[in-house]
Amino acid sequence: MADILGDMRRTHHCNALSAKDMGQEVVLMGWVLRRRDHGGVIFIDLRDREGITQVVFNPEINPEVHAKAHAIRSEYVLGVRGKVEPRPDGMVNPKLPTGEIEVLVDKLKILNAAKTPPFLIEDKVDVSEAIRLKNRHLDLRRPPLQRNIITRHKAGASVRNFLNANGFLDIETPVLTKSTPEGARDYLVPSRVNAGQFYALPQSPQLFKQLLMISGFDRYYQIVRCFRDEDLRADRQPEFTQIDMEMSFVGEEDLMAISEGMMANLFDEVPGRSLGLPFPRLTYAEAMDRYGLDKPDTRFGLELADVSDIVETSGFKVFSSVVKKGGIVKALNAKGCIDFSRKEIDDLTEFVAVYRAKGLAWIKVREDAWQSPIAKFFTDEEKAKLAERIDMAPGDLVFFVADQPKVTNEALGHLRNHIGKKLGLIDENAFNFVWITQFPMFEYDETEKRYQALHHPFTAPLEEDYDKLETDPLAVRSRAYDLVLNGFEVGGGSIRIHDMDLQQRVFAALGMQPQDYREKFGFLLDALESGAPPHGGIAFGFDRLVMLLCAEPSIRDVIAFPKTQRAACLLTNAPSEAAKAQLDELSLRLKLTLTDAQEKANTDE
Amino acid sequence: MADILGDMRRTHHCNALSAKDMGQEVVLMGWVLRRRDHGGVIFIDLRDREGITQVVFNPEINPEVHAKAHAIRSEYVLGVRGKVEPRPDGMVNPKLPTGEIEVLVDKLKILNAAKTPPFLIEDKVDVSEAIRLKNRHLDLRRPPLQRNIITRHKAGASVRNFLNANGFLDIETPVLTKSTPEGARDYLVPSRVNAGQFYALPQSPQLFKQLLMISGFDRYYQIVRCFRDEDLRADRQPEFTQIDMEMSFVGEEDLMAISEGMMANLFDEVPGRSLGLPFPRLTYAEAMDRYGLDKPDTRFGLELADVSDIVETSGFKVFSSVVKKGGIVKALNAKGCIDFSRKEIDDLTEFVAVYRAKGLAWIKVREDAWQSPIAKFFTDEEKAKLAERIDMAPGDLVFFVADQPKVTNEALGHLRNHIGKKLGLIDENAFNFVWITQFPMFEYDETEKRYQALHHPFTAPLEEDYDKLETDPLAVRSRAYDLVLNGFEVGGGSIRIHDMDLQQRVFAALGMQPQDYREKFGFLLDALESGAPPHGGIAFGFDRLVMLLCAEPSIRDVIAFPKTQRAACLLTNAPSEAAKAQLDELSLRLKLTLTDAQEKANTDE
Repeated sequence: MADILGDMRRTHHCNALSAKDMGQEVVLMGWVLRRRDHGGVIFIDLRDREGITQVVFNPEINPEVHAKAHAIRSEYVLGVRGKVEPRPDGMVNPKLPTGEIEVLVDKLKILNAAKTPPFLIEDKVDVSEAIRLKNRHLDLRRPPLQRNIITRHKAGASVRNFLNANGFLDIETPVLTKSTPEGARDYLVPSRVNAGQFYALPQSPQLFKQLLMISGFDRYYQIVRCFRDEDLRADRQPEFTQIDMEMSFVGEEDLMAISEGMMANLFDEVPGRSLGLPFPRLTYAEAMDRYGLDKPDTRFGLELADVSDIVETSGFKVFSSVVKKGGIVKALNAKGCIDFSRKEIDDLTEFVAVYRAKGLAWIKVREDAWQSPIAKFFTDEEKAKLAERIDMAPGDLVFFVADQPKVTNEALGHLRNHIGKKLGLIDENAFNFVWITQFPMFEYDETEKRYQALHHPFTAPLEEDYDKLETDPLAVRSRAYDLVLNGFEVGGGSIRIHDMDLQQRVFAALGMQPQDYREKFGFLLDALESGAPPHGGIAFGFDRLVMLLCAEPSIRDVIAFPKTQRAACLLTNAPSEAAKAQLDELSLRLKLTLTDAQEKANTDE
Repeated sequence: MADILGDMRRTHHCNALSAKDMGQEVVLMGWVLRRRDHGGVIFIDLRDREGITQVVFNPEINPEVHAKAHAIRSEYVLGVRGKVEPRPDGMVNPKLPTGEIEVLVDKLKILNAAKTPPFLIEDKVDVSEAIRLKNRHLDLRRPPLQRNIITRHKAGASVRNFLNANGFLDIETPVLTKSTPEGARDYLVPSRVNAGQFYALPQSPQLFKQLLMISGFDRYYQIVRCFRDEDLRADRQPEFTQIDMEMSFVGEEDLMAISEGMMANLFDEVPGRSLGLPFPRLTYAEAMDRYGLDKPDTRFGLELADVSDIVETSGFKVFSSVVKKGGIVKALNAKGCIDFSRKEIDDLTEFVAVYRAKGLAWIKVREDAWQSPIAKFFTDEEKAKLAERIDMAPGDLVFFVADQPKVTNEALGHLRNHIGKKLGLIDENAFNFVWITQFPMFEYDETEKRYQALHHPFTAPLEEDYDKLETDPLAVRSRAYDLVLNGFEVGGGSIRIHDMDLQQRVFAALGMQPQDYREKFGFLLDALESGAPPHGGIAFGFDRLVMLLCAEPSIRDVIAFPKTQRAACLLTNAPSEAAKAQLDELSLRLKLTLTDAQEKANTDE
């Protein structure tokens, strides 16, 4: 059979040749990174996935090949055969693994031509993300993206090898599944065969993995695509990948230990970093107290101090009245920041306003006295107590937020991260893991006027809190745990409810009626009655984890074909309109409003 | 923290203990397979994923534990602690790995109770598939399904390890992608953010993997979920899994070699079988000629013989007229089947009628003469020629079908399989692979009055057939190849078109106008112009492959949570109705017809 390759087959990748191969005849295939003509000789840097090799077309070697090489432009695809030769003196490039050699070409196949790309295939590219996404096949040729996708591959393989070796079974769960309108919004898939009915794409394989434990599979995992039809925040994707795990006959510590083993193995194998085990653990209450956030960045200090008890009885009404109304007052000591300007402090006040903090009080701690608009409201005794609690020293700048606990913590927690970055306190090379445990079981949804599960309704409460399920739901702590890395939540899980009665009590606490939860989760309740073992699990956000491994700022840089914030694929133009015949087959009709039509004019392309 | 497990942790799985562990204190956890009471002692077979261990509750060891054990029923979940002891003489079970020992229990935790299951958790179960699927969490506890799911896990791991070791990168492609109404029907997913627009679930990552080659990733794979909204035939699923691969700078032989390596490794590692390499290769034309089917079962002979040239000029009008109208006459020699009854032959005639064969002529070859209704139509010379071509010997029964090639081949091809099975010619332990190559590029769709791609429109034609693309499309052979195992197509792929002009010629041959293919596949054409390497790939049906590895008759037996033929999940009750608020958010409205409503009353539950 005729074929453009003929019998030419690659012998090496473009990173492979060095002085040891001198004189050997080799065949390389790849893309033209750049071409230089020098004294009648053509030099081409040939690029493939693995590296770059200089190939040389010299008219003295083969005038025909040299003539043909004149047509070659950037990004052309070549197959070349030639001899490995030393580079002439002064041409050696010590930065390149192949920098000592070049290939003197005696046979050339131009396998394909290429139009001039809309941007250069280089490390840095000065072009909008929209253009990069529209030309993703070219963007993916750039070395940083090549490295990211290869790192992602290695990370997946490392995780799988570790879990396989630890008795986990990779078991696939359905993508076309049942809509359970809990938590985030489902993507729906209309059924044609069952007209008028819909599948949902899974937000996680949660119930299936619990069923697998009930089936006796003991240890399950899957690196699995999940879906969430949410209004996309900065760095979310409508489809995302998680490392999903579940184990039987275990408690929190078992899950944490296996997760730590997996992470240590991953960080050892991929970035070559040794992690100290076990990871530190903080209860949710401790994390909120010390960092104001349930995903604290523990790469730096600047811990918060709760001063509510000290200020409650003070003459500063703004503080004392907040505490009396159930709020809290907390302080962040920006050590040594006494020289922040008025403008800088105003900017930080605006920063915390985003988190709904109504103000940001401050004290500059001078050798002799406090410089502060609020200093006058405190007695010397109160000042002494505050100074001790907050660990004030001359040169410090202390910030206060007084508000309901949620606002105070969120505002100061983010302010802490902001100041940590501003002051350069963060070691960008560090990987600081921390477990957060004993989350609240429920939170109260003011809009819907009911309790919602903070994790999900299948999470077990702490046994000692069972009796508060009906009397004081907000005080019930759960057996949920999150794994936080450098301030990002990279995983979360829980010990599950394996007892049908307890599951029903939790559904009831969430305000569900028996007929509701029977209809939605009857199969789970049946399964819990059929011999369900104690079990628990965890899921890690694979995109985010790889993003942190690659030190990239966005998950879009570690996903081969990501979507925009409007959930569009600019490369293939998805989503797109459906043919009327397709909708007819699905028994569907569009019902577009004027607003929709306006929205449509407003896409992000 | 209190917890039902307390500090009890499993020390062994239920397959692990044997004489070497005698006297050791162990903790087991698992399900009650069966319970026997014997002389005041309670014997329980405790089951987990790995095996069965006999655990014994003797009142003399611990009367309290023994009393508690009285409550235990089938499928209860237990944690037991006790000493490994030899079984009493005469109680040893040599069929069980743990058959020499038992565990004398001194501590018992009943971790969960269980209702009596609707069927026994045993190898064979006498209950409808609907009941099994509705109680899939229990069905999955049965040993054959446990084995199948574990085999599937091992098969996936084997494939990944092989491909990782061979430089393939596991790269994820989108699930929410673009609808391209080619081939099978897409599942659509309405977009909320882009009202009135739809994603499609991928039938395969075909174009994304080609783009990855164009991006320079060189070798890609993914074990990936795909979707097809077809009316489900016997053993199809709306979502299925494929091993999807693509390579750059290769031809057919490279793809076949890597595939063969992967299969040899898989069959070596999982069922422990050594495959002979390379696999035999047949062109499509040869396969049709000799077996009548493009997925021949090569575990037995009974090859077909084309006798068109002999019968064309014969006096038997039924045969000669078919040949004159462009049809063919082929024979299947059922060696030694002369004793088939009239009834048996009638049944076979009905069998071929399913494939639209209008009749089944036959000859019984006796020592002295032919016994056949058609014998009289042939001259002695014709008889001699037929006897030689068909390799007739006394005792044979020869069948003939005369019809258009498609009907003749299909009818006799399936008759061959049927008779092979009936005669017990098939070695059920054999794994016979064969490659089928050089498929036709196009077939003519009589309904739509246009050519369709037999494989898909991105498949390269044979270079020597390029010039027939416009003049004689049906004569164009493609660079597609299928891998067939025991009569099942387990994989298929092709060398792709990497040249934009050739791709446009193929689109044109399929009757597409430039504006059509630009709109649908513009991004591919752009990518082909941006430096596309020669590339090709293959995809293997993972469900089917595992089914054959497990020697199961249905892919539903190797999928943890399969759907019915009406694409329903009987366990979770998917698909189901959506809330009006959900449809409103998606700008959709249902348009059910009376027929739909009737259909809905008619589900397979």
